[in-house]
Amino acid sequence: MKAALAQINPIVGDLKGNAKKIKEFISKARDMGAGLVVFPELATTGYPPKDLLLKPSFIRENIASLRGIIRETGGITAVVGFVEEDGGLYNSAAVIRDGELIGTQRKTHLPNYDVFDEKRYFKAASEYRIFEAEGLKFGITICEDIWVDGVLCTNIAEKGARFIVNISASPFHAGKLGERDKLISTRAKTGGVPVIYCNLVGGQDDLVFDGGSCVFNGRGELVARARRFEETILVTDLVRGKIAPREEMIEEVFKALVLGIRDYVLKNGFSKVVIGLSGGIDSSVTAVLAREALGKENVLGVFMPSKVTSRESFEDAKKLADNLGIGFTVIPITETLEAYLKTLSREFRGTRRDATEENLQARIRGNILMALSNKFGYLVLSTGNKSELAVGYTTLYGDLAGGLAAISDVPKTMVYELARYINSHREIIPRRVLEKEPSAELRPGQKDREDIPPYSLLDPILHAYIEENKSIEEIVALGYDEALVRDIVWRVDRSEYKRHQAPIGIKVTTKAFGSGRRMPITNRYRG
Amino acid sequence: MKAALAQINPIVGDLKGNAKKIKEFISKARDMGAGLVVFPELATTGYPPKDLLLKPSFIRENIASLRGIIRETGGITAVVGFVEEDGGLYNSAAVIRDGELIGTQRKTHLPNYDVFDEKRYFKAASEYRIFEAEGLKFGITICEDIWVDGVLCTNIAEKGARFIVNISASPFHAGKLGERDKLISTRAKTGGVPVIYCNLVGGQDDLVFDGGSCVFNGRGELVARARRFEETILVTDLVRGKIAPREEMIEEVFKALVLGIRDYVLKNGFSKVVIGLSGGIDSSVTAVLAREALGKENVLGVFMPSKVTSRESFEDAKKLADNLGIGFTVIPITETLEAYLKTLSREFRGTRRDATEENLQARIRGNILMALSNKFGYLVLSTGNKSELAVGYTTLYGDLAGGLAAISDVPKTMVYELARYINSHREIIPRRVLEKEPSAELRPGQKDREDIPPYSLLDPILHAYIEENKSIEEIVALGYDEALVRDIVWRVDRSEYKRHQAPIGIKVTTKAFGSGRRMPITNRYRG
Repeated sequence: MKAALAQINPIVGDLKGNAKKIKEFISKARDMGAGLVVFPELATTGYPPKDLLLKPSFIRENIASLRGIIRETGGITAVVGFVEEDGGLYNSAAVIRDGELIGTQRKTHLPNYDVFDEKRYFKAASEYRIFEAEGLKFGITICEDIWVDGVLCTNIAEKGARFIVNISASPFHAGKLGERDKLISTRAKTGGVPVIYCNLVGGQDDLVFDGGSCVFNGRGELVARARRFEETILVTDLVRGKIAPREEMIEEVFKALVLGIRDYVLKNGFSKVVIGLSGGIDSSVTAVLAREALGKENVLGVFMPSKVTSRESFEDAKKLADNLGIGFTVIPITETLEAYLKTLSREFRGTRRDATEENLQARIRGNILMALSNKFGYLVLSTGNKSELAVGYTTLYGDLAGGLAAISDVPKTMVYELARYINSHREIIPRRVLEKEPSAELRPGQKDREDIPPYSLLDPILHAYIEENKSIEEIVALGYDEALVRDIVWRVDRSEYKRHQAPIGIKVTTKAFGSGRRMPITNRYRG
Repeated sequence: MKAALAQINPIVGDLKGNAKKIKEFISKARDMGAGLVVFPELATTGYPPKDLLLKPSFIRENIASLRGIIRETGGITAVVGFVEEDGGLYNSAAVIRDGELIGTQRKTHLPNYDVFDEKRYFKAASEYRIFEAEGLKFGITICEDIWVDGVLCTNIAEKGARFIVNISASPFHAGKLGERDKLISTRAKTGGVPVIYCNLVGGQDDLVFDGGSCVFNGRGELVARARRFEETILVTDLVRGKIAPREEMIEEVFKALVLGIRDYVLKNGFSKVVIGLSGGIDSSVTAVLAREALGKENVLGVFMPSKVTSRESFEDAKKLADNLGIGFTVIPITETLEAYLKTLSREFRGTRRDATEENLQARIRGNILMALSNKFGYLVLSTGNKSELAVGYTTLYGDLAGGLAAISDVPKTMVYELARYINSHREIIPRRVLEKEPSAELRPGQKDREDIPPYSLLDPILHAYIEENKSIEEIVALGYDEALVRDIVWRVDRSEYKRHQAPIGIKVTTKAFGSGRRMPITNRYRG
């Protein structure tokens, strides 16, 4: 039997569009000679539909859309993720063939951690059924089911299944493919039957689904894998197939960010983005990602100098824009800053210059980008990295302004890795950008290191605190200076209010700020 | 037996401070002759502790804090909410007496809807235990347990319990007290035993816990109730006690907002707030609430006129500030707006004036308030109402800027009710503010009704769509014009990105924007 893995990129809430796409892929699979075609988890609704699931009309229309799909299944068996209603909601797979619904398999293990809220919406399955395609028996698991349940595949195999299907919507983080491979291989080997794993692809707000759908045989060996980060169909006989090459870690992060940007912009009805280019590494990397995602004609870089902006910054920003072939314009902020300071002079009389004046500069830049967005329909990409966002080294309504924070889950040290990866064939980001010391350029001669700990120390401490939930004591035990650790933890905790108002950012680590990390703002705990 | 209901206001994460407070209230209860003292749900940590619960050090320190509390229980039985660890976390009540932990009761029903995420953190209880205080047997339920489980109180009574304790952290919404009274009365009557209900009090980010702890006797009659919206202790013999008067609906909303503002400001280490006063009703009501919460010396009103600002607006804002005795200052935005327009003139050449220029004005005001915040340590209260926030009639980084959106869950029609309530004894908000037509004053002669549907139609349609999850079809069936309903739904859905970056707002309805409503931004569903 030939099986097709339909690794589709649906749009959340687009019930009609998703159904149309599913029908097209069923037709494609049939044309390619497949007897079975498998779609990802919640293919009809897109993932995660979140509180759309609380709207009864949405559930009804999702079921109506499945009915339309059922009519298109002449001569082929399809497994399609949808929302089932039966005295409550179930995250289910429909097995359909020749215009008939053969049956459904409900999800048993509902993830309710990190970005997942499935217990908010769904009830759990109570049984496993065996289905058949071209005379071969098979069982179905849904995403989490295969991760947490060690005996499930064995149980299904013992019921006579000759292979196991898993339909997933598994969000990307760096290194996840390796984890998945190991897991699926183990499950296939333990059950002694092939596993067909079909994953969603595409960006959805903060999440990127990386695809990489695959088949492992009953000895736990990889026999086929679809390309990642793109919509595609993979046909295999469960014994052999094409195996798309596996990316290096930094390459997969790059591809995930590009897909995340492209889908956020296009799925939200925008086509072009505007980016504040400072001549620094964060905005440079963001511009490269945006160009890759949307094409050079859809990216505008805006350089917004003040009196403290260096000549080098202008040259670097200009050269980057030239290298990328993107639009470039210069809008100085000096006069506007003077107008603010004049307007505030009575209130500020007798006070000293402090972060207020620096924030004003950042906010003028944010306003200018938003004005261009309002007037011409650009989406603003903000350019802050994870390290800055973690310690609050960022201005609310200033550099934090934007529709999407492209690299807000990328630690500064990884931003440099991305820049080196980008430059690996030719110099796209001017070399000086990688070599000069990071600076916010909000006061004369300013350097990041005057304001925050060096990134080489900051990033591993942030990783231990945020991704590993380690306490101050435990981080100090790793060999870091206690005062430094306390200072960083204090900065992270007191910046919660800024992150609460930050734009959506694309998750590429195991713990991103955003929907997967829910910290109180009012919080006296330090540790 | 005399029982004390210790209706405390803990601070999330302040394990030491909360333990100290609990010890003080144990001592008070003992002094008042109580044999039993009951504390709210998760009294040691504050509620909701959210992802602090994922930090092992936080759990350990919460248990250590309980140990300290146990030592202070000579001569009295105490029921204290804490986080129990036993191969997983439990939301538990500790029963302690004479320096010993007698036992614990775990929560059975874990709410995982609206603002609640308890299945993210906790496992559920599998059994109910019977405890004893001064020779009287009793059982314990925890918040949700008493709401969803109709037979539980009967079962506990059948095990010999002479009364039932419920410890809660039940968030306020308008009208909730009536729902609670009805529920507790029914449970007490069905079980045939008194119910002692101790609720948390205080503001925590978007939530206000209203207290109102109470005792119902076994015939379902209210015999005692603590004052709401304040920390207090209520002592009763389960037969009779003091019954604090019940507020009218608009009075309870007023008190909830005052408590929410006060606790957000003070618990986050601020003491004073700054508010942009426009002479309109939203900022007027916000200023009254802030003065009530923090005192007149801690509120600064800033009037920020442009060329299109009317004389009336200035007079109304000034008069309000005078009536309240709060600080008042005028900072014009004209020159700064001119500087922006000059700076952008090259980019904007050949374009027409549109919302861009209006947004710039709002953003200059936002920046000025943030500059005052940065320079002098004010927290900025933003002043938008729920109706505006729903349809996106608000400027991101402009009037949406702030640390707390005081009335962002108050529909415009309810803002008027609040204003009339405020003015019920004497004219605090100038009458003209209630009488004049709402206007954003961002262009000459502008009125809200030119930009959005009238509030008298908007608010009921928003209620049906947001609070009741009704579809367009169902709302039209209520008798509203279909084009109007479609327009409003479209406005709500396309504004999701703005709400994602909005400040925390205080929940006073059954469905607030914020943590209880989780909609995708990328979303093609309309219905």
